[in-house]
Amino acid sequence: MDYQAVLEEVAAHARPYVRQGRVADYIPALERVSADRFGIAVADINGEVYGVGDWETPFSVQSISKTFSLALVMAQSHGGHDSIWRRVGREPSGTPFNSLVQLEAENGIPRNPFINAGALVVTDRLQTLTGDASTSMLHFLREESGNQDLAFDQAVADSEAEHGDRNAALAHFMAAFGNLENPVPSVIEHYFWQCSIEMSCRDLAVAGGFLARHGLRADGSRLLEAREAKRINAVMLTCGTYDAAGEFAYRVGLPAKSGVGGGIIAVIPGRCTLCVWSPGLDARGNSVAGAAALDHFTTLTGWSVF
Amino acid sequence: MDYQAVLEEVAAHARPYVRQGRVADYIPALERVSADRFGIAVADINGEVYGVGDWETPFSVQSISKTFSLALVMAQSHGGHDSIWRRVGREPSGTPFNSLVQLEAENGIPRNPFINAGALVVTDRLQTLTGDASTSMLHFLREESGNQDLAFDQAVADSEAEHGDRNAALAHFMAAFGNLENPVPSVIEHYFWQCSIEMSCRDLAVAGGFLARHGLRADGSRLLEAREAKRINAVMLTCGTYDAAGEFAYRVGLPAKSGVGGGIIAVIPGRCTLCVWSPGLDARGNSVAGAAALDHFTTLTGWSVF
Amino acid sequence: MDYQAVLEEVAAHARPYVRQGRVADYIPALERVSADRFGIAVADINGEVYGVGDWETPFSVQSISKTFSLALVMAQSHGGHDSIWRRVGREPSGTPFNSLVQLEAENGIPRNPFINAGALVVTDRLQTLTGDASTSMLHFLREESGNQDLAFDQAVADSEAEHGDRNAALAHFMAAFGNLENPVPSVIEHYFWQCSIEMSCRDLAVAGGFLARHGLRADGSRLLEAREAKRINAVMLTCGTYDAAGEFAYRVGLPAKSGVGGGIIAVIPGRCTLCVWSPGLDARGNSVAGAAALDHFTTLTGWSVF
Amino acid sequence: MDYQAVLEEVAAHARPYVRQGRVADYIPALERVSADRFGIAVADINGEVYGVGDWETPFSVQSISKTFSLALVMAQSHGGHDSIWRRVGREPSGTPFNSLVQLEAENGIPRNPFINAGALVVTDRLQTLTGDASTSMLHFLREESGNQDLAFDQAVADSEAEHGDRNAALAHFMAAFGNLENPVPSVIEHYFWQCSIEMSCRDLAVAGGFLARHGLRADGSRLLEAREAKRINAVMLTCGTYDAAGEFAYRVGLPAKSGVGGGIIAVIPGRCTLCVWSPGLDARGNSVAGAAALDHFTTLTGWSVF
Repeated sequence: MDYQAVLEEVAAHARPYVRQGRVADYIPALERVSADRFGIAVADINGEVYGVGDWETPFSVQSISKTFSLALVMAQSHGGHDSIWRRVGREPSGTPFNSLVQLEAENGIPRNPFINAGALVVTDRLQTLTGDASTSMLHFLREESGNQDLAFDQAVADSEAEHGDRNAALAHFMAAFGNLENPVPSVIEHYFWQCSIEMSCRDLAVAGGFLARHGLRADGSRLLEAREAKRINAVMLTCGTYDAAGEFAYRVGLPAKSGVGGGIIAVIPGRCTLCVWSPGLDARGNSVAGAAALDHFTTLTGWSVF
Repeated sequence: MDYQAVLEEVAAHARPYVRQGRVADYIPALERVSADRFGIAVADINGEVYGVGDWETPFSVQSISKTFSLALVMAQSHGGHDSIWRRVGREPSGTPFNSLVQLEAENGIPRNPFINAGALVVTDRLQTLTGDASTSMLHFLREESGNQDLAFDQAVADSEAEHGDRNAALAHFMAAFGNLENPVPSVIEHYFWQCSIEMSCRDLAVAGGFLARHGLRADGSRLLEAREAKRINAVMLTCGTYDAAGEFAYRVGLPAKSGVGGGIIAVIPGRCTLCVWSPGLDARGNSVAGAAALDHFTTLTGWSVF
Repeated sequence: MDYQAVLEEVAAHARPYVRQGRVADYIPALERVSADRFGIAVADINGEVYGVGDWETPFSVQSISKTFSLALVMAQSHGGHDSIWRRVGREPSGTPFNSLVQLEAENGIPRNPFINAGALVVTDRLQTLTGDASTSMLHFLREESGNQDLAFDQAVADSEAEHGDRNAALAHFMAAFGNLENPVPSVIEHYFWQCSIEMSCRDLAVAGGFLARHGLRADGSRLLEAREAKRINAVMLTCGTYDAAGEFAYRVGLPAKSGVGGGIIAVIPGRCTLCVWSPGLDARGNSVAGAAALDHFTTLTGWSVF
Repeated sequence: MDYQAVLEEVAAHARPYVRQGRVADYIPALERVSADRFGIAVADINGEVYGVGDWETPFSVQSISKTFSLALVMAQSHGGHDSIWRRVGREPSGTPFNSLVQLEAENGIPRNPFINAGALVVTDRLQTLTGDASTSMLHFLREESGNQDLAFDQAVADSEAEHGDRNAALAHFMAAFGNLENPVPSVIEHYFWQCSIEMSCRDLAVAGGFLARHGLRADGSRLLEAREAKRINAVMLTCGTYDAAGEFAYRVGLPAKSGVGGGIIAVIPGRCTLCVWSPGLDARGNSVAGAAALDHFTTLTGWSVF
């Protein structure tokens, strides 16, 4: 597969979709990003990386970090990795990603680890396991991406905290059901720091390589059992793109996780990990040009999990 | 009407219901109250008070305070008293009293001022109007009841705060919709102080007299316009007893407001205000013996708004 | 009280509201009614009737019939009148009047007898008790109103049936929960016939007199025990005006039942029964000018249940 | 791959799960099936079939038919195959499979074609396209399976109709939103006939071969475009096992469709189609032993889409 040629064709196809949708504006730090940006990168399972456009420009990972917090919790729970699943479900949410309705109906157990409530529970668990849920993630991402310059964006984290009433509501609500181990302010703070990490398409495609390598890290050591890596992919496919997971599976057919910074990572198990970025979002919070690019990538390559 | 004789007959009728239901146990300070207690008082519109049983024993007013915070906000909003109604509705909630579902569906506007979310909005408004939402209420209650010993119960307020995640969730959630004027911790704190006020049946029946006197205070001065007092009674009837308001109207037929401390105040417009107390609660949070007593009172007197 | 003078002032006050709102258009037979119409009538408990405007013009009673079906079921269930309350609740619905959500959450038990689902259950019961739920109601209304010309409007009943998928859904849904005694098509048919009855403000005010007379019929015989009549008034107040019952209680403060034909009946217990009619409806299905008229009536007379 | 050996090992693994769960009992015809049965079959893409246990015993396909009705509608809508997606969504339902809540919130558009409401819409469309939505499916299944003896089970269809109030409610409700083209009774009848078809594991594995062959029928002709077949697989994975689709994807990782008769078909794209049958169902309506068998099949073979 000539990845470079494919990516160039994909970028050309996606170009008309750039600037479509709407840049996230709930915090100023995200709103300032130019809607014009578009980048895409592929990292194959041997560590080769290809990219076009703004593939080396850092952006705010936002909810893509939820994939890594889940992986780290599963990796650090050897012999008891199922425990997180007593506190968070694995079913698509069926309602917009911040919904409190489901949480109330199901006694404080979030439907899955990729809605905000679920990610707060996972972050809480990671905090307990590591003592620092955000720094441990940052160190992991630096190692996997090979980019020691990765850092939090303090302006983004502060801005999220300032506008964080909804996440505070979710966390207090779960605390009321006894589903948090650490104090609400601490959990929220680490969650916002995780979301604020800045990474490029290149960084994310490389750092997510373990998902395509059935759990093996960049250095060949094992992060997750093969069945655990497969299972994260399954959760990505059914829950990774907010309330559009069914539509995304239908169109693209790959495990993927999106963020409101405009990034989407996707996995072709056994082959490669992709990351695409363009800040314009559709009504459900997924990058418009990013989804179009992944759709076209699967059309060109014929690769899909189905 | 020989109130004393009626109250004695009512108390005899209600006696078998005492110890039925379940004393509120979500905070230790409430759990310690003996389930055996029962008291009832009537204050007629001329200021005469009658009582039987534990009618002079103070108990935690809890949600009964919601009636007074609403009255105080309406009283202090002359010429613009409708403003609170842009931030809180007047419809029965149709779901258990802490529900977040409705709040989400209706963009952070609570259905009515007597569910917790609505009372938080009213407290927030009272805080803005008076600078101290809990002390201003305490002073008002001392004046109206004529009992200068009324006080907050610090143990109750602290205990509520310790177990206050659900109310914190509600407050943060409304803040996310822009429906709070003051900081969340301040609103919650004043709300808990209001709930912690200790009053007896006597105190509450006397302090609520303005509802039977079409808005006139104990000293004859006007707190509310007649139509405002009437309207608070309407909201009490349709929303005052949690998710059992329809049932309560059906059985008792009086405007009423209950609290999880086991108290219920009820109004017979133009005649008198009642307060009954017995700590055992039914599944919807209303005093079992208290409801039975009010039911029997209306049967004996033939008084009902219908 | 000079009713005639009051009604004239009320009509003058309500006039600007006539033509506001929107005439029900879900069936052609209702859509054809002129939005210009306005009438109001009062029947005092001695049988005197007063009216202004189009108070003698028949209109489609629609949901006002739900009051009479409930009364007839309660009247015919002597000694066991509570049985209907095992199949239908007494709580305000908290959601738009046709909602299926609540019905699903509460196992096929409608929240109250005045939402469509609840009225279908009441009609089903009346069908079992009388063998003909619509004709028995028509005969009762003829007797109470003294107008032997009252009749069904076949065009309306047929039109409702043609557009009756939502009511059919409700009925089948309750049948799935075992909450209907008679076949779905039969229950729906009688329900539509009841709604199609044509009556004037005069007819309705007179026919509803038993609600103001604590259960006594026009001829002085007893239809309902006093407490039963009081209880129907309570249900009217908390549930009689769709999802606006709280608002209606707040503004008007009277037990009332509205219909999408533009009529509203209201009760002042011990004094009189009113009926007002004007076809323009607000967003919740209540007559705009009708509500304004009742509001003004209570302001002028100072009569309210609160 | 020695399919026969794998199936035998899978059957041995699944054996302890047989008789677990509960046989569907909402209609007598299903209740009569012995809980002891277990069969599994695999049809590879070349038409070879393997099986163990009761793999040749016919059972009621029930909701598995939803896969075929969707495929037939997509196949007969060349050039305009997207039209069905204006009338039914592609998102997991997030609530139990018969829920009306979502349908109301989303204006009569079912969330996906595999919940009952969605399948009624697909059946309605197939009825319009073919003139006979049940017979056209039966003929297709006979041809694909090569078994001309396939037939409806009239007792099952009649029994479903007798207990069909909930489906009638769904259909009337969607008709009220204008989302049915044919009369409600006709749509329901054809839907019940489809569900009543009796097939064995062998029949279903062979008949579903087009899903593994990227749209090619048993005779090599094209039923669906490759992307259409892939998309049906995507919908099966995200929505095929009622409210347990996320859990099923997590555990098994294959596109699958279950039925309350105890059957489940699953697809390994490019390789084979499986069908497993055992009547004991878990709380969400999926065969307990069937899910265990598919789980073990993927463990043994290492085949998964992830």
